[in-house]
Amino acid sequence: MKSNLLSNINNPADLRLLDETQLPQLAKELRDFIIDIVSVKEGHLGASLGVIELTIALHYVFNTPEDLLVWDVGHQAYGHKILTERKENFDTNRQLGGISGFPKRSESIYDTFGVGHSSTSISAALGMAIASHLKGETDKQHIAVIGDASIASGMAFEGLNHAGVTDANLLVILNDNAIGIDPSVGALKKYLTAVKEGKNPKKNNMIKSLNFDYSGPIDGHDLIGLIKELNRLKKIKGPKFLHIVTTKGKGLQQAEENQVKYHAPGKFDASTGEILLKSEENQPPKYQDVFGLTLLDLAKKNPKIIGITPAMPSGSSLKFMMDEIPERAFDVGIAEQHAVTLAAGMATQGMIVYCNIYSTFLQRAYDQVIHDVALQNLPVIFCLDRAGLVGEDGATHHGVFDIAYLRSIPNLIIYAPINEIALQDILYTAQLGLDHPIAIRYPRGKGVLPNWKVENFGHYKNIVIGAANCLKKGTKKAVLSTGTIGNNVIAALNECSNASEIAHYDFSFIKPLDYNALQEIFNTYETIFTIEDGTINGGFGSAILEFAAANNFTNSVKILGIPDTFIEHGTVLELQQLCKIDVKNLTKLFSNH
Amino acid sequence: MKSNLLSNINNPADLRLLDETQLPQLAKELRDFIIDIVSVKEGHLGASLGVIELTIALHYVFNTPEDLLVWDVGHQAYGHKILTERKENFDTNRQLGGISGFPKRSESIYDTFGVGHSSTSISAALGMAIASHLKGETDKQHIAVIGDASIASGMAFEGLNHAGVTDANLLVILNDNAIGIDPSVGALKKYLTAVKEGKNPKKNNMIKSLNFDYSGPIDGHDLIGLIKELNRLKKIKGPKFLHIVTTKGKGLQQAEENQVKYHAPGKFDASTGEILLKSEENQPPKYQDVFGLTLLDLAKKNPKIIGITPAMPSGSSLKFMMDEIPERAFDVGIAEQHAVTLAAGMATQGMIVYCNIYSTFLQRAYDQVIHDVALQNLPVIFCLDRAGLVGEDGATHHGVFDIAYLRSIPNLIIYAPINEIALQDILYTAQLGLDHPIAIRYPRGKGVLPNWKVENFGHYKNIVIGAANCLKKGTKKAVLSTGTIGNNVIAALNECSNASEIAHYDFSFIKPLDYNALQEIFNTYETIFTIEDGTINGGFGSAILEFAAANNFTNSVKILGIPDTFIEHGTVLELQQLCKIDVKNLTKLFSNH
Repeated sequence: MKSNLLSNINNPADLRLLDETQLPQLAKELRDFIIDIVSVKEGHLGASLGVIELTIALHYVFNTPEDLLVWDVGHQAYGHKILTERKENFDTNRQLGGISGFPKRSESIYDTFGVGHSSTSISAALGMAIASHLKGETDKQHIAVIGDASIASGMAFEGLNHAGVTDANLLVILNDNAIGIDPSVGALKKYLTAVKEGKNPKKNNMIKSLNFDYSGPIDGHDLIGLIKELNRLKKIKGPKFLHIVTTKGKGLQQAEENQVKYHAPGKFDASTGEILLKSEENQPPKYQDVFGLTLLDLAKKNPKIIGITPAMPSGSSLKFMMDEIPERAFDVGIAEQHAVTLAAGMATQGMIVYCNIYSTFLQRAYDQVIHDVALQNLPVIFCLDRAGLVGEDGATHHGVFDIAYLRSIPNLIIYAPINEIALQDILYTAQLGLDHPIAIRYPRGKGVLPNWKVENFGHYKNIVIGAANCLKKGTKKAVLSTGTIGNNVIAALNECSNASEIAHYDFSFIKPLDYNALQEIFNTYETIFTIEDGTINGGFGSAILEFAAANNFTNSVKILGIPDTFIEHGTVLELQQLCKIDVKNLTKLFSNH
Repeated sequence: MKSNLLSNINNPADLRLLDETQLPQLAKELRDFIIDIVSVKEGHLGASLGVIELTIALHYVFNTPEDLLVWDVGHQAYGHKILTERKENFDTNRQLGGISGFPKRSESIYDTFGVGHSSTSISAALGMAIASHLKGETDKQHIAVIGDASIASGMAFEGLNHAGVTDANLLVILNDNAIGIDPSVGALKKYLTAVKEGKNPKKNNMIKSLNFDYSGPIDGHDLIGLIKELNRLKKIKGPKFLHIVTTKGKGLQQAEENQVKYHAPGKFDASTGEILLKSEENQPPKYQDVFGLTLLDLAKKNPKIIGITPAMPSGSSLKFMMDEIPERAFDVGIAEQHAVTLAAGMATQGMIVYCNIYSTFLQRAYDQVIHDVALQNLPVIFCLDRAGLVGEDGATHHGVFDIAYLRSIPNLIIYAPINEIALQDILYTAQLGLDHPIAIRYPRGKGVLPNWKVENFGHYKNIVIGAANCLKKGTKKAVLSTGTIGNNVIAALNECSNASEIAHYDFSFIKPLDYNALQEIFNTYETIFTIEDGTINGGFGSAILEFAAANNFTNSVKILGIPDTFIEHGTVLELQQLCKIDVKNLTKLFSNH
């Protein structure tokens, strides 16, 4: 009888009514439940499959939600969500209005801390533990579950360094599966591997150096063993560290064997595990591949070119270069701060460094961009992947702040290509030798030119820094767009009966702005629209207003973009609709105004 | 004969002509030279005195500037500057147009990497080392000198974690003096102390865990020993780590005995070491003390209040609370990322957390402010010390980006008090229970109310969130100021013969803006000036423009603030003059316009 146990479990209290001997059966059911739904609804798979036993053991041993459990990153929390009152709507995962793909405080009392970006769990759980201590809640437990890729990030080290000198009731569980989204890297990973292989079990224990009560490594799929160890640790006061070893994708053969692909496999056959491939014929390329293929091509011709990614070789497609020119393409792990300053160090020696970081993760290295790159005017080339709305990953992952947070930095060029050709051309132009650092922001997913690779790839053009492009003339109004959202403008203008009135300018260069073009535009058109897939506050439109104010223009300017609220998850189109920057809304706006 | 050796040394090539036996004499002369000048010209003292022997040894053994030397933070680089062609103008240190207080690439070929913020040296030097390796410069040496406070920061760990799996010619020298600006904290510090005391020399060696060739600890004041060890390490390929033990302030008794005070002692008697105290009578309090005293007072009355500082207890005056209520006041070390997320974790448990971080250092925790605090709408109270122009510390330390980088974050309140009373009142108001996080930004140094402590301290008023204050009515023009720069406006209006025409509004709340007041202002006055001590790009003035555009106002708006360039070092007044936001420039502007 399928789902016999799971069907009766709505929350951890129900779980705790089970006998220990029933738990392996529950683990099987929970895996099947996740596989069944994710195979159809898509989402993150491997991470959650890897911690099924840990998830059950934690909720079985600890008194959640009184005891406070923090999942680092949160890709692995599907089992947790299903066991904590979200089984019935788990099929709405990552959909507009549905549950989030990550733990989220507003969604459940069991989600003690919202996550999405990595390496926050130790700091958050320590904060909770210190608060409990001050409140006299001395029996309360606080648990951070963190992977071996995440614990190598500097922020996690800062948390450990502090926790080690407190008497906080903190249990850090290292879920060591030797992989994040891509395989883990770095000296710590090497060390952990040695520990697991029994080569270094006693000596040089880093975690003990930081004053933690260390135990492990133990098998993270041995439910009974896990429960025993968690029960033992529950009785120990102060900071504790448990090292468990798991297999990402556990229980689905293909997911175990191809952990990178099955991190988030898309739709697949739940019974065979086979990924259901969509036809790629006549599809435009992903911007990621435009980046990856172009960089590889340029790097082959220019030995000074270097590529850097903090832990996203597959996601960014830097992998193409890593495979062919490994000595010049670096995955530095989840270490955005280091990635940026490493790039700066290389740039001082004349290297041409492409530092690819997701827009949302560059927030982690904001100071390094200012202090180590821009202040020294080092010509590092930042490639900000997943700029704008990212869709189903939701509020933690949208790359909507970058224009605002970068625009105030002196020396920095900011460019948002409108399509695949512009992206490859700016990547080409950047290595010809800029006098300044540049940030190139482009979105997640597919472009607009199905024949890009055949027709355009490799036919590079030098882009004039700071020049805006007039895509279409008009008479009364002008639309100033930046980046790929400009394609929505093009589509909308195709729908407008009054299109002849409306000019369209592509301001790929957010900085420096094309002041000559702006003078002409403000002298020619009564009404100006600006549009961007970034925050209205402080963004591109705001830059246009600053220009207008400084030059005494009094034209009407309407700014379109992301409003002053956190945008949740949904398809990119749905989210554009929410922000009224989709084709339909734009058509209406341009027609009526 | 005084300065016999030093007077003949202009650069390291001169230094290398000396015999090893002469070097201790040179060390003495170099110390005296620094003490003589810093005693009169002010600046950072203790750090440089502590590394005199190391500085000489490094330039003696290595072939600088061919070999690349990176000083972390750079407080300790005075000896380095003097030995590298800047002896003659060392007396211009930190003055407008003079040399910088920190290493700076544009100043000297010997300054391989600009510093100021901590923990960047390993990443930068590793980047250089990898570049040299790729260029085939296999004998080139790359050295990062980093203190024990800085190496505990997450970014340094990220650098070590990467370096440990490379074959880069990198030498990391840990200058372990158990202190940053304030004494070092954390588990790593505890571990290093054990190592130094011989309690843990072989086992649990963290650095060896990270795959480094570790040597030490050795005496960092033993010049001959240092030279011998550096010569040995020079011949070893790959990542190396040397642990040296030094005394901050070495050679000046008072500086050794009172290391916090002599970090940057101001003027002192070069022969006795006594600090020359300025009269504090009738002086306004420092904003830091307004913060520190107010927080202590509030915390005594409210047991939920917690204070956090990342390594700035003295600088921020959180020390007042740490001394009296140590269980609720935390110095977490140079760990801004951790500090913010720790605060978020505490806030989930109902604690009222004042997280005090210098404006320029909050850049290090930008993602945590967005992702861990604002997205979850946790009412953390950020106290942004040293916002605006900081003066002599210069380009690396000005807190001029915060308005722009915070203003695009949803949920966040941003407040800049105009004076001491407003600062204490907002600190009071914040703990009454806000529904949102708040950032309170205030400058370095003295306020404007000499009698604040006697007349106002403790007489708290509840501030209405989002309300602007009309300080003065007018007829034609209105000046909208935010923060303490408003005092320049008050002073300027006192000088203007046409003052009756000019209204002055205090927009302490940069967010939320007072839309009612703005409606009235834009309906009443033809010309609007905005003024802030932050970047014009994306700042407060930009927010006013967004309001005007959204509400179809066509008034003339002039934005005053920091232009789009990095501002160097000088007195605050000199820098305000450069930016034309000093009283004199404002008077002229308001009068003429």
